Amino acid sequence: MSKFKLAMIQMAVGISKPDNLAKAVKFIQEASSSGASIITLPECFNSPYGTKYFPEYAESIPGGPSTEALSKAAKENSVYIVGGSIPEKDGDRLYNTCAVFNPKGELITKHRKVHLFDINVPGKIRFQESEVLSPGESLTMFSTPYCTIGVGICYDIRFAEMAQIYSNKGCSLLLYPGAFNMTTGPAHWEAIQRARALDNQVFVATASPARDENADYVAWGHSSVVDPWGTVISKTEEKEGVIYANIDLSRLEEVRKMIPITKQKRYDLYQPATLALKKIRQDDLYDSH
Amino acid sequence: MSKFKLAMIQMAVGISKPDNLAKAVKFIQEASSSGASIITLPECFNSPYGTKYFPEYAESIPGGPSTEALSKAAKENSVYIVGGSIPEKDGDRLYNTCAVFNPKGELITKHRKVHLFDINVPGKIRFQESEVLSPGESLTMFSTPYCTIGVGICYDIRFAEMAQIYSNKGCSLLLYPGAFNMTTGPAHWEAIQRARALDNQVFVATASPARDENADYVAWGHSSVVDPWGTVISKTEEKEGVIYANIDLSRLEEVRKMIPITKQKRYDLYQPATLALKKIRQDDLYDSH
Repeated sequence: MSKFKLAMIQMAVGISKPDNLAKAVKFIQEASSSGASIITLPECFNSPYGTKYFPEYAESIPGGPSTEALSKAAKENSVYIVGGSIPEKDGDRLYNTCAVFNPKGELITKHRKVHLFDINVPGKIRFQESEVLSPGESLTMFSTPYCTIGVGICYDIRFAEMAQIYSNKGCSLLLYPGAFNMTTGPAHWEAIQRARALDNQVFVATASPARDENADYVAWGHSSVVDPWGTVISKTEEKEGVIYANIDLSRLEEVRKMIPITKQKRYDLYQPATLALKKIRQDDLYDSH
Repeated sequence: MSKFKLAMIQMAVGISKPDNLAKAVKFIQEASSSGASIITLPECFNSPYGTKYFPEYAESIPGGPSTEALSKAAKENSVYIVGGSIPEKDGDRLYNTCAVFNPKGELITKHRKVHLFDINVPGKIRFQESEVLSPGESLTMFSTPYCTIGVGICYDIRFAEMAQIYSNKGCSLLLYPGAFNMTTGPAHWEAIQRARALDNQVFVATASPARDENADYVAWGHSSVVDPWGTVISKTEEKEGVIYANIDLSRLEEVRKMIPITKQKRYDLYQPATLALKKIRQDDLYDSH
């Protein structure tokens, strides 16, 4: 079970939730027919991306029609589904949430985006998820017969610590449904994916909505898969479609053997106490001159 | 003092130590004449890079001719010198060490490479610094009137934790003298520099020896400076020369305001205890189906 096919679905998301769900199910069937065992949908696949849409499109997880559709699709196709994200309603609160299903159609975990997307690049892009969303309060990993997988949603990928924890805890693959935009996409999207892959020597994959130039929020697209050497092994541009990657976990072991940074970490030095000692040494050096 | 000119010297290093020192001093004078206030030499600038050379070229720091030459050059040109690295001898031990001088010519700190370069890419590159070198036992930051600077040597740059600590402690610029090779250079050199800059929203700069196709270890070159947005603002290819960057620290503040990840970290979630709680939640989810 050291090899499997991964599918990342870059679907165009529209205003109709039933249409979005039907399209997601159709792409899942297509990816399953192509041999994918783990299939990832994009961030916010049942709703346009925008704070004004979230309350209307939000659902309970489990219990809502999006969860039910994904559960059924996972079971019928006997695949793992990492359900991108949907706006989740829980009591008075809304979250940006990824639901994960096993091949029996069981909801095995859900990830609520923990780092909310609050940015302001003047004249380019301003977005404040925190105006309507609450942040998740935990990180999310799950086990499959192939490997352990860590999940983040979009802006979560900017936080290197999260990926470090996932890989330290044994994740071999990090999945980030995410919708970067026309400012941060060209500037940062691929660089950050390669950073997570290279620094942790894991596979990293992203699934974005396809670009819709008429949407309030124009997604960059460019869903990708990066291997533990930092090489982009699969990617697309802005249009709708499914990308695939044959994940061979022996590649991860090979890279970690060649450049063994996972065993060479100096955790003994990554502590504040060590820095304090160095401060004294610096003072000594100053004094000696 | 929020702006200064940074120079990174990509010099060709030969077999003659006196020639290497004379060349370093010449480039320091050139960089100072061009207005640089902080000047960085490449890794192993007084010696060819190779374990067989280190014992012969090693010196005490302070006390050896390389330290003396840099101290004098710093004072004469009234500049900060981040002295790349040289093999350092301390008792029976050898280190790969960067000595840092202030504009008075005083040795203000030294960094001993803490992550030794032990890699083995079959058929491409095998190198084991630990065969002759000992690792440093502390991280190294120093203050200037412009900003606080963190120092790493080459392979240290692969360890994201080190850069995170430096930026958390207030460094605005990370300097990595380093000699990547013809395998890891094209694959990883720029990607890792951009990763450090983007993830920490700091300036990152590297100084490599120029490429010598006849050397035992062929350096990739490509000394670079990257800004806190992850943009490469200065770089060269494989040949000898000096690159410059006008560092404006207001750019760092601007980037951190636009995409405020330094304030949005979820340290409350980056703890093992939180992960244990999540494990319980996952079990609950399993049980509920």
